[in-house]
Amino acid sequence: MSEPRGLSEPEGLFAGVFARGGRIGDGAWLQAMLDTEAALARALERAGLAEAGAGAKVTGAARADRFDPAELGRQATLTGNPVPALVRALTEMLPPPAATAVHHGATSQDIIDTAAMLLAAKAADAALGHLSAAAAAAADMAAAHQDTPMLGRTLLQQAVPVTFGLVAAGWLTGLDEARTRLASVRRERVALQFGGAAGTLASLGPDGPRVAALLAGELGLADPGLPWHTNRLRIVELAAALAGACAATGKIARDVTLLAQNEVAELREGSGTGSSGTGSPGSRGGSSAMPHKRNPVASIAILGCSRQAPGLLATLAVGAEQEHQRAAGGWHAEWQPLAHLLELTGSAAAWCADLLTGLEVDAAAMRTNLAATGGLPLAEHVTGVLAPRLGRLPAHDLVAGAAARATAAGRPFRDELLAAADGVSAQEIDAALDPAGYLGAAAVFTARALAAHRATETGLADGRRNGPQASPAPPGPGPQ
Amino acid sequence: MSEPRGLSEPEGLFAGVFARGGRIGDGAWLQAMLDTEAALARALERAGLAEAGAGAKVTGAARADRFDPAELGRQATLTGNPVPALVRALTEMLPPPAATAVHHGATSQDIIDTAAMLLAAKAADAALGHLSAAAAAAADMAAAHQDTPMLGRTLLQQAVPVTFGLVAAGWLTGLDEARTRLASVRRERVALQFGGAAGTLASLGPDGPRVAALLAGELGLADPGLPWHTNRLRIVELAAALAGACAATGKIARDVTLLAQNEVAELREGSGTGSSGTGSPGSRGGSSAMPHKRNPVASIAILGCSRQAPGLLATLAVGAEQEHQRAAGGWHAEWQPLAHLLELTGSAAAWCADLLTGLEVDAAAMRTNLAATGGLPLAEHVTGVLAPRLGRLPAHDLVAGAAARATAAGRPFRDELLAAADGVSAQEIDAALDPAGYLGAAAVFTARALAAHRATETGLADGRRNGPQASPAPPGPGPQ
Amino acid sequence: MSEPRGLSEPEGLFAGVFARGGRIGDGAWLQAMLDTEAALARALERAGLAEAGAGAKVTGAARADRFDPAELGRQATLTGNPVPALVRALTEMLPPPAATAVHHGATSQDIIDTAAMLLAAKAADAALGHLSAAAAAAADMAAAHQDTPMLGRTLLQQAVPVTFGLVAAGWLTGLDEARTRLASVRRERVALQFGGAAGTLASLGPDGPRVAALLAGELGLADPGLPWHTNRLRIVELAAALAGACAATGKIARDVTLLAQNEVAELREGSGTGSSGTGSPGSRGGSSAMPHKRNPVASIAILGCSRQAPGLLATLAVGAEQEHQRAAGGWHAEWQPLAHLLELTGSAAAWCADLLTGLEVDAAAMRTNLAATGGLPLAEHVTGVLAPRLGRLPAHDLVAGAAARATAAGRPFRDELLAAADGVSAQEIDAALDPAGYLGAAAVFTARALAAHRATETGLADGRRNGPQASPAPPGPGPQ
Amino acid sequence: MSEPRGLSEPEGLFAGVFARGGRIGDGAWLQAMLDTEAALARALERAGLAEAGAGAKVTGAARADRFDPAELGRQATLTGNPVPALVRALTEMLPPPAATAVHHGATSQDIIDTAAMLLAAKAADAALGHLSAAAAAAADMAAAHQDTPMLGRTLLQQAVPVTFGLVAAGWLTGLDEARTRLASVRRERVALQFGGAAGTLASLGPDGPRVAALLAGELGLADPGLPWHTNRLRIVELAAALAGACAATGKIARDVTLLAQNEVAELREGSGTGSSGTGSPGSRGGSSAMPHKRNPVASIAILGCSRQAPGLLATLAVGAEQEHQRAAGGWHAEWQPLAHLLELTGSAAAWCADLLTGLEVDAAAMRTNLAATGGLPLAEHVTGVLAPRLGRLPAHDLVAGAAARATAAGRPFRDELLAAADGVSAQEIDAALDPAGYLGAAAVFTARALAAHRATETGLADGRRNGPQASPAPPGPGPQ
Repeated sequence: MSEPRGLSEPEGLFAGVFARGGRIGDGAWLQAMLDTEAALARALERAGLAEAGAGAKVTGAARADRFDPAELGRQATLTGNPVPALVRALTEMLPPPAATAVHHGATSQDIIDTAAMLLAAKAADAALGHLSAAAAAAADMAAAHQDTPMLGRTLLQQAVPVTFGLVAAGWLTGLDEARTRLASVRRERVALQFGGAAGTLASLGPDGPRVAALLAGELGLADPGLPWHTNRLRIVELAAALAGACAATGKIARDVTLLAQNEVAELREGSGTGSSGTGSPGSRGGSSAMPHKRNPVASIAILGCSRQAPGLLATLAVGAEQEHQRAAGGWHAEWQPLAHLLELTGSAAAWCADLLTGLEVDAAAMRTNLAATGGLPLAEHVTGVLAPRLGRLPAHDLVAGAAARATAAGRPFRDELLAAADGVSAQEIDAALDPAGYLGAAAVFTARALAAHRATETGLADGRRNGPQASPAPPGPGPQ
Repeated sequence: MSEPRGLSEPEGLFAGVFARGGRIGDGAWLQAMLDTEAALARALERAGLAEAGAGAKVTGAARADRFDPAELGRQATLTGNPVPALVRALTEMLPPPAATAVHHGATSQDIIDTAAMLLAAKAADAALGHLSAAAAAAADMAAAHQDTPMLGRTLLQQAVPVTFGLVAAGWLTGLDEARTRLASVRRERVALQFGGAAGTLASLGPDGPRVAALLAGELGLADPGLPWHTNRLRIVELAAALAGACAATGKIARDVTLLAQNEVAELREGSGTGSSGTGSPGSRGGSSAMPHKRNPVASIAILGCSRQAPGLLATLAVGAEQEHQRAAGGWHAEWQPLAHLLELTGSAAAWCADLLTGLEVDAAAMRTNLAATGGLPLAEHVTGVLAPRLGRLPAHDLVAGAAARATAAGRPFRDELLAAADGVSAQEIDAALDPAGYLGAAAVFTARALAAHRATETGLADGRRNGPQASPAPPGPGPQ
Repeated sequence: MSEPRGLSEPEGLFAGVFARGGRIGDGAWLQAMLDTEAALARALERAGLAEAGAGAKVTGAARADRFDPAELGRQATLTGNPVPALVRALTEMLPPPAATAVHHGATSQDIIDTAAMLLAAKAADAALGHLSAAAAAAADMAAAHQDTPMLGRTLLQQAVPVTFGLVAAGWLTGLDEARTRLASVRRERVALQFGGAAGTLASLGPDGPRVAALLAGELGLADPGLPWHTNRLRIVELAAALAGACAATGKIARDVTLLAQNEVAELREGSGTGSSGTGSPGSRGGSSAMPHKRNPVASIAILGCSRQAPGLLATLAVGAEQEHQRAAGGWHAEWQPLAHLLELTGSAAAWCADLLTGLEVDAAAMRTNLAATGGLPLAEHVTGVLAPRLGRLPAHDLVAGAAARATAAGRPFRDELLAAADGVSAQEIDAALDPAGYLGAAAVFTARALAAHRATETGLADGRRNGPQASPAPPGPGPQ
Repeated sequence: MSEPRGLSEPEGLFAGVFARGGRIGDGAWLQAMLDTEAALARALERAGLAEAGAGAKVTGAARADRFDPAELGRQATLTGNPVPALVRALTEMLPPPAATAVHHGATSQDIIDTAAMLLAAKAADAALGHLSAAAAAAADMAAAHQDTPMLGRTLLQQAVPVTFGLVAAGWLTGLDEARTRLASVRRERVALQFGGAAGTLASLGPDGPRVAALLAGELGLADPGLPWHTNRLRIVELAAALAGACAATGKIARDVTLLAQNEVAELREGSGTGSSGTGSPGSRGGSSAMPHKRNPVASIAILGCSRQAPGLLATLAVGAEQEHQRAAGGWHAEWQPLAHLLELTGSAAAWCADLLTGLEVDAAAMRTNLAATGGLPLAEHVTGVLAPRLGRLPAHDLVAGAAARATAAGRPFRDELLAAADGVSAQEIDAALDPAGYLGAAAVFTARALAAHRATETGLADGRRNGPQASPAPPGPGPQ
């Protein structure tokens, strides 16, 4: 198996924001197509269908920097895709016996679909690495802050207390679920496409399935058992897993932007100058005209990526309705959105790792904000404490009345409660108003998320060891 | 565990087309919410947190037909959702001790999210049943027609021969992949949501996790370990699996509409009067004004459903960016698209089962259409046969020239080949032009799809036996 | 012209939230189809193609409550749409001579598309009414608060001062733009569809165009000049205008949810008990368990509606690629999303009118929040004031340094400025730190938005007077 | 007014297919941003707010080839967008007095939004040019083939006759509607964005509106009257107009792929070697391995573009919900989809012009296919002819019976009719079965589409003369 070369560097005006995990530009596409052609030549040689040495010769020639994407793009207007021109150019570089091995048995769709899968494998692996770092940071915060109380907020209004540990545990769970799914799709569903002109590999006679298996091995991709040219569920599942990863990061970024508002100030993005490998020099988030600002740049970048995902996912889901043995347009409409979604997911993941590893948590501000509420978010708790003594409904009415008077008059809720609740001591009221006493299962849930995180780590490590596998079922020892 | 009641009958002006597998109307929603409230009362009783008999009393009252959806809907404008009004109405039906068990520990989101999951479980199970019937029919056709040659068509142009068995095998693979994924999501990701006001279950004190586990058991849903109120990846994964099922049926329907064109006439929809349980009386697809027409109604209905899926999937993926502990609008925007997507998937699946079980395959027309091409789709084969003798390039040029002359002059390709290929016998040409000799791995691929189908059946049966399970990892014996 | 009957009442479990402006359920659809059939009979009679009185007889029978949607829905499975069954049922109600006028010249698509346009006209008119009320309320606030300073916030961080008048002017402009576009589409693009079996009206012989014109007149719809059966740009434009209206309301709702956060508290939703015709009894937004909460229910409801629009718009845009003279599935996939988008837009508009007419603006809180910043948002202003004296760069560095020290040490920015800026008086600093002195063109822009609003009102009133018109150009006195 | 430089050449691996009308790559973006900065310097100079000559100096420096997009992209990670780095780099190129004019009064969003509008104007103008050529070709075909009968096809089944002229007229109407809307948006809604830090232009003191007007003039864009920074309806309307143009071309491409199927063969794409300026050398659509194929490459390219539009439109519609005075992520998520949608629309338009100018119409094949039906598509006509004599129902039954027998037995419909219809002459039957006698209003509708086309041309020419204008209403002589 030859290692396919990687994604392009994230160079370009917007690449730092939207392609931070690597670009999928012309160079990356071209190399992935050439890697596929080269692997095919090697597979044909191993199958005895090309002369000895043909694989090495094609592989040697199959370097993207030897080809002119602009010229290939111009010729692509004659056929609707760049493969025929690429095959011609590659063939012309080679001596005749090796040349005949080029593209033998394949059709343009085989090359483009398999190249897309190679790019998907690379991009998914990179994204999984970033998501792993992000999850580790979330787990650290969940563990460190499992007893840090903060205001829970529902419908953008203050509700009852939670812990920041539980908030981080929720982020962690989202990241772990996204990783689990993306790793599963990458392992089981990112696969070779090889079917020839109409999915029968007829030009290889009886050798088609054997060449396909060898080709999959050369590329390090799963052998799907049969061509999937117009069965695009692999693409839909991949796109959904990518969109899921974007969604997991987007939820985190949304929370951070809200908790970093000046009026809330419970979280603050780091300056991005830390040890994160992809970090940039200089301090992030500042504004020269407005020196008081610290813009949540990482969160913004994540949202700038993640919010593009659903539309691209929809495009790819629409595209799955493909005609006969090759779709007229529906297939072509996949290339750009898939590549873009891979880029965006990698970028959101890289930014998320940066965000969470550098996140500044202000536990004091969390406590201060809680205290500033005067205990109103604990009203439910007070009711629960008083109910056994007063009955549920009277307790409720008493607390609601106290809360209303406190809010209307700007007086302490505690005082109103004391005034209203005959025979209840200040100590009891204070205990009921202590957020630390009304956190329910926050610690249990946080611990469970951390336990599940450890299981996820183990599961993903096992999956990486086992490598790619066919799905839904291995072709097995069936008829060949 | 009490069996939640099912989806509504597919009644309504458009329900036969778009909700054939069952409607998710007000009645179904209401019952699912009531089932959740009733199960909670039973769980509380089992946990010792409600008086003996409270569960049965609440369960007895929790019948949708006792409530007025219109009135609940009016009151929902005060809170943004119908649960508070429903809880009030339910409570008023009950004697005081049982009444206090109603909704104890829960928040509106718990009820709506869990109700949605109950509906999802029902709808997914129903859809899986229809998809199973569709897959069985596809498998039968793949087996029956593994040697039936037909024209392969790429980019909506005639290409090289394939078999109808391979076409059906491709449909089968899509259906099986969609079933595998949907079953996996249904088993592992369709789960209880129960977190109370902000995800801590604080009003249940230390009993929250235990009540949650009992509640999950009562409902037959997986216990997620911790609340997922603003981690919506379960919804995204469910939606993607549903959209995948729609895509699998849509691909089939697209092929059928194309192959049923009068000018092609290789397939023809059945009249829908067969034994399919949901079949309707009368003959389908006729047109009184145009008696020659047989409209592909089942395929049209499938496409009418499947094409709505990507947009709904996008809406649900957008919705995953939810704020804090409960989203302001993002959560609410999920209810309708999720229910609609469940309906549409069930309908597409039911129609697909009907379509494939009744499909009329005209193998003779397939052969006739192949023959009518005069062998041009075999040009690639002829080139392959002549290449060893003439050299690859000369063989290609000879065949291309003969094809061009045949097309331009309307003469038989065979005659042009015979005239041009010195020393090649008519017998050799005829053999090269025989579609049956150029089917490559069609039979192998078909057999593999059938083998994978048997493995899928086994896997799905195993999954059903094992029932719901938590994901990504069981909470295990962790801290409680 | 007979007045088509209106939308259904917003009854149902979720209708108060998602269909507050009126539902488009089976009853509304059925009546719209029947209105179309009845108008056709009257048009035929006026054209001399049906016996005298046929129009009145068909119109008398064409009442939705006489038909059973469930039965029609069951029969629709034979044809893929409910029209043939509806035509049969309607015909059976009538004496023979009138019966022959039913559906004469029409095809199912004519009835469904025209019914959809009737529903669109009704729903758009209703939405425009609500949007008009919302715009009036926004204009009132823009005028009332043109001098009310508040914090401008960019990237969810405090930036420089703005006025609430300008914020309201921005909302107003969005509403007015949405209204202008929706009114234009409703007037010019909501039109009759009438083409017969394949768009030629052949069964009417030479009378087709004349009947079409009469039919458009009967229905109060524009005559499109020629059938638009598979040219769906009207649907795309309508959907885009609806999504634009949703977007305008969604922007407002998003701002309100953010400004109503407890930590910001500059806006607060009214209780919804005002004079708004669709208002509900009781106080809105309260939470019995959390008595301190005032949930922004109207904003949430708006976002719950508006966030469903883009996915539906995408579905309708995908659907525009329709085959030949009637699409197989692409057409059918439009019915539900179009009706749903109409409902959601009406609901978002109704909620927005309610939101803005009841919105409580806390100008004092706006000033307090501004003051609490200690003048940091005015740093840009101070730099501008000092620059002429110190030079631009030194002024910038001085201010940035003072801001950094103030933020780091928690000391007043004003004091740091005074200490650093030799020869600048406290009076000058205080003037530079006064938000009222740094509002730029806020008042001008607000006045322009109000002027544009008055022009919009005039333009829309003119449009309503002129009634429906063809587009892109009237057919004129061309060949008939 | 200085002419902004154009879009990039369509160079790149996929640019020939997806960006044929011009690319919007880093170079185009960079130049558009620099054009905006240069125009601002000129506007400031004209307003007396920058020294004489500053405008020319900044304009001279503002050339994209002097800047390094990769370096700007790296620095963009500190701020979330590339403008601050660009401003710094531009400033450093200039002598101090001119340098102070750079970016004065502006914020990053002003530059990016206005640059996007400049790109939109260029791209829309280019697309309108291509659409105009496409419409002209459609009009020519509509006129030339107004009497060419062909099979109408509904639900992908043969229905009743139409004319190819009417088909082309339908395409024409779609193109003209799309052009009208896109031109309207380009003229009225593509406008300057200029608001400074938070939309008040405060740093320009009282001069903001005057500078804005001058800046709009310099750029040739409409002056919107007030900033639209977080009112994104302009973007939504632009995106919808672009998606509408894609939809109009996609409908045509879909029809061509279907009518070019070998089994239908009524249309055939040209070889693309004609005089179209962007045409490519060589013959298009051939397949070396399958010499009989002529792939409909232009149609495929159109569909490859047009099918990406709805998802991008949805992303942009979602993005319209922007917070406060600048959105955190929602704004950023617009840049790529808007640029991509502009590219795709231009490409679809260019391909469509190529497709329609080169389309080969086989009127003989149309007649042959009609004749091959044996008259069944005329059954409705025969019924109409016989009804006055036999009564409507007996006529219908007679014809339906004859059609059923003809289809079942493979006998001529004509013979069955003759045998069944006593007293009806063969001449009468033959007349009823003549497609030319059952074309209804096809010619009238075609003529109307052509008349509307001429009106569209006039309207668009008038619009171009009048240039950009504000919307919804000019700011007029209001307060400044």
